[in-house]
Amino acid sequence: MYDELIASPRVLLGPGPSEANARVLKAMTTPMLGYLDTEFVQIMDDTVALLRRVFGTENSLTLPVSGTGTAGMEAALANLIEPGDPVVVGINGYFGGRIADIAARCGAAVTTVEAEWGKHIPAEKIAETVEKVSSPKLVALVHGETSTGILQPLTEAIQIAHENGALFLADCVTTLGGQPVDLDARGIDVAYSCTQKCLACPPGLSPISFSARAVEVIRNRKTPIQSFYLDMTLLENYWHGEKRGYHHTVSMSLIYALREGLRVVLEEGLTDRFERHERNARALLAGAKAIGLQPAAEEGYRAPMLTTLRIPDGIDDATIRGQLIADYGIEIGGGLGIFAGKAWRVGLMGDSSNERNVMLFLNAIEKLLIESGHSAKRGTAVQAASQAYDV
Amino acid sequence: MYDELIASPRVLLGPGPSEANARVLKAMTTPMLGYLDTEFVQIMDDTVALLRRVFGTENSLTLPVSGTGTAGMEAALANLIEPGDPVVVGINGYFGGRIADIAARCGAAVTTVEAEWGKHIPAEKIAETVEKVSSPKLVALVHGETSTGILQPLTEAIQIAHENGALFLADCVTTLGGQPVDLDARGIDVAYSCTQKCLACPPGLSPISFSARAVEVIRNRKTPIQSFYLDMTLLENYWHGEKRGYHHTVSMSLIYALREGLRVVLEEGLTDRFERHERNARALLAGAKAIGLQPAAEEGYRAPMLTTLRIPDGIDDATIRGQLIADYGIEIGGGLGIFAGKAWRVGLMGDSSNERNVMLFLNAIEKLLIESGHSAKRGTAVQAASQAYDV
Repeated sequence: MYDELIASPRVLLGPGPSEANARVLKAMTTPMLGYLDTEFVQIMDDTVALLRRVFGTENSLTLPVSGTGTAGMEAALANLIEPGDPVVVGINGYFGGRIADIAARCGAAVTTVEAEWGKHIPAEKIAETVEKVSSPKLVALVHGETSTGILQPLTEAIQIAHENGALFLADCVTTLGGQPVDLDARGIDVAYSCTQKCLACPPGLSPISFSARAVEVIRNRKTPIQSFYLDMTLLENYWHGEKRGYHHTVSMSLIYALREGLRVVLEEGLTDRFERHERNARALLAGAKAIGLQPAAEEGYRAPMLTTLRIPDGIDDATIRGQLIADYGIEIGGGLGIFAGKAWRVGLMGDSSNERNVMLFLNAIEKLLIESGHSAKRGTAVQAASQAYDV
Repeated sequence: MYDELIASPRVLLGPGPSEANARVLKAMTTPMLGYLDTEFVQIMDDTVALLRRVFGTENSLTLPVSGTGTAGMEAALANLIEPGDPVVVGINGYFGGRIADIAARCGAAVTTVEAEWGKHIPAEKIAETVEKVSSPKLVALVHGETSTGILQPLTEAIQIAHENGALFLADCVTTLGGQPVDLDARGIDVAYSCTQKCLACPPGLSPISFSARAVEVIRNRKTPIQSFYLDMTLLENYWHGEKRGYHHTVSMSLIYALREGLRVVLEEGLTDRFERHERNARALLAGAKAIGLQPAAEEGYRAPMLTTLRIPDGIDDATIRGQLIADYGIEIGGGLGIFAGKAWRVGLMGDSSNERNVMLFLNAIEKLLIESGHSAKRGTAVQAASQAYDV
C-alpha cells in the first residue's frame, strides 16, 4: 500500500504553480454541493462576477473552463476558428508556438509573425503581416510569454486587428491578476488565463471571456465546434442559461478555491496588487544584476511576474536548481525550448511575490553561485535589492 | 464585496458528486509543489499505480486526464477516431447519446444500436449492428448509464467487437470503484471514468486507460489528433516519459485528492467496496418498493450505485426534491432527457453508499410522499430496508 501523502514545504518561484493562498486551501475543504444546487449555482454566479472584475470586463460570456490554461487556449481557438480560417499568431516564445499548433489542429490557415525569444513583437511587424493576410479572422498574441518573461504591448496590435476586421485574442495565462489586462478598455475579444499563477489558486481552471463580437462569430459558425467539452455555446447554457442546462460536473473544490482566490485579489485591490508585482520584480532584478545575472528579456518589455535571467558561463543549470530545492526548498524554473539550459525563470506571482521571497532567493542564489566559482561578494544581491525597495 | 464561502451540509444522493471522503478533503490542503518537482512526479507515479489497480489493468497508458468525465470521453474518442472511421455506439440513455455526439464531432461515421431508456442493450442487437457496419474501428458502450441506472453487460459485446476487428470502449464514469470494471480480464481497450462518484473525490479529473492495441491505433494515425489538450501522445510523454516533457500543469490539489481517494478505496478493498454498494442498493430498493416506488431500470440490469425510481402519479418531482433539500439537506437527482419529471435518480456512490443514508432517505421520502397524498404507512420503507439488510 502507499504511504500517506506528504509534500515538503517549498518556496515556489518558478513559472507556476505559485504558492496557493492559505484561505484558498481552506476553502477547498468545503464539502461538495450538487452541481445544480441553488447554493452552488450562487457560488458559480459569484465566481463569474468576481472574474469579470479581475478581467476588467462586462462580457456576458465569462466563466472558468474546467481545465488548465491550455484548455482555455484550446477553447478560445476551437470556438472561433472554422476550417480554412486565416489566423495570425505572434510567436516570440514557447506559448505563441502552442497557439499556432492548436489553431492548426482547428483547421486554421496560420500565418506567424515572429520575433526573437526575449524580444517583444513590434507593432509594425504585426501590421505588415496582418495586412498581407487576406481578411484574417483572428490575431493572437501572448500577453505575458512564460517562456521568456516578455510582456507584449497590446494596444497597437488590437487596433491593427480591428482595422483589418479581425478579432483579437490575448493569452493572459501569466498576467491575469498581476498586470492590467483590461479587456473592455483595450477591446480584447477573447482572453483566457489560469488559476495557479497571479491568482494564487491551485491549477485546474481556465478563466475565459469572449466579447460580444466574438460571441457573434461563434453564433454564426457554419461548422460544428470540434470539441464538445469546450463548446462555449453549451458552457454558456450551463453557466449562464436561465435553466442551467447540464453539460458537465464542474469541480466544486476548484470553484470554491477560485471564488476565494478572487476575493483575496479584490480585497488587496488590483492597482495595489499590480504595484506589488512590479516592486518585487524591480528589487529582484536589482539584486540579480548586482551579482552579474543579466535579464534575458528586453528592457522595457519585462513581465513583472516572471523574470528570466541568463545563466552565467560555467554555471550548470540543473546543479544550481537542484541545490536551491535541496538546501532552501526554493523552486525556480529552468528554460523552456531554446532557453533550456540558457536561462532561469524566476516567478514572483500572486502570493509568491513578496519581499521575503526576493531576499530568500537572492541570498541563496548568490551563495550557490559563489560556491560554483562565480565571482561576487556575499551580501551584494540582498543589499542591492533592499536599496531598490527603498527608492 | 462577496461574503465568505459557506455551503450548507448536504447528504449527496444524486448522480454525483457524492460526498467527498474527509481524508480526501484534508489532502487538498497540501501546499502546491512544482509540476516537475521530483516529489510531485512521485505522487503522479503513485496515483497512476493506484489507478491501475482500481481499473484492474496493467495498461501502461493509464493516467488521470485534467478534466471531468466528459473530457475523458472526448480524450478516448478524439485519440482513436480519424475522420471517416466507422464507429458503433450503444444508446440506451443520455450518455450513450453524448458518445455519439462527440464521435461525430471527431469525424466518425456513427452507427447507433439503441434500446429503450431503462433497458440494457441485448448482445444479439449489438452483434447484428456491428456485423452490418463494414470494419468498425470502435464499439462503444456505457457500462453504468447515469441517466437510467442500467448496468450494461459487457462480456459478449467485447467479444463481438474483437471478432469484428474493432476496439472496445467502456464508459465507466459511474461504475469505477463501485462495480468491477476489470479492464484486462475483460479485454476492454479504452475506459474512462470520473472522480466524484464511486471514488469519493471531488470532480475535476478523468481517469483513463488504453490497452496496447488501442495505443497501437493511436501510433498509426494518419491525421493529427484534433485536440492538443487531450492528445494522449503528449500526455503519455508528460506522465510516463523518461524526461517528463512539459504539456500542461496538472492540478496538484486534484491529484493529491485522487491519490488519497484511491488509497481509501484500496484500504477498504475492491471486493468489499463492490459488495457494500450492492448491499445498500438492495436495501434502498426494498424500502422504496415497500412504499410503492417502482424501479425504472430493468430487473437484473440495475447499477447498484444509481437507483432510478418512477415518480408516482400525482406527485410533483420538483416539489419533492425541493423539500428533500430544504427539510433534510438530502439531494437526489431529477430525471435527465426523457426521464425528466418521470424518474428520480438516487445515487449511493462511494462514501455516500451507507446504511445511514439509505435510512435517512427512505424515512424522508416516505414522509414527503404521504404528505403529498401518496398512500403508505409511516415506517414501512425503513422497516423493509432493515429487513433487507438482515438477509
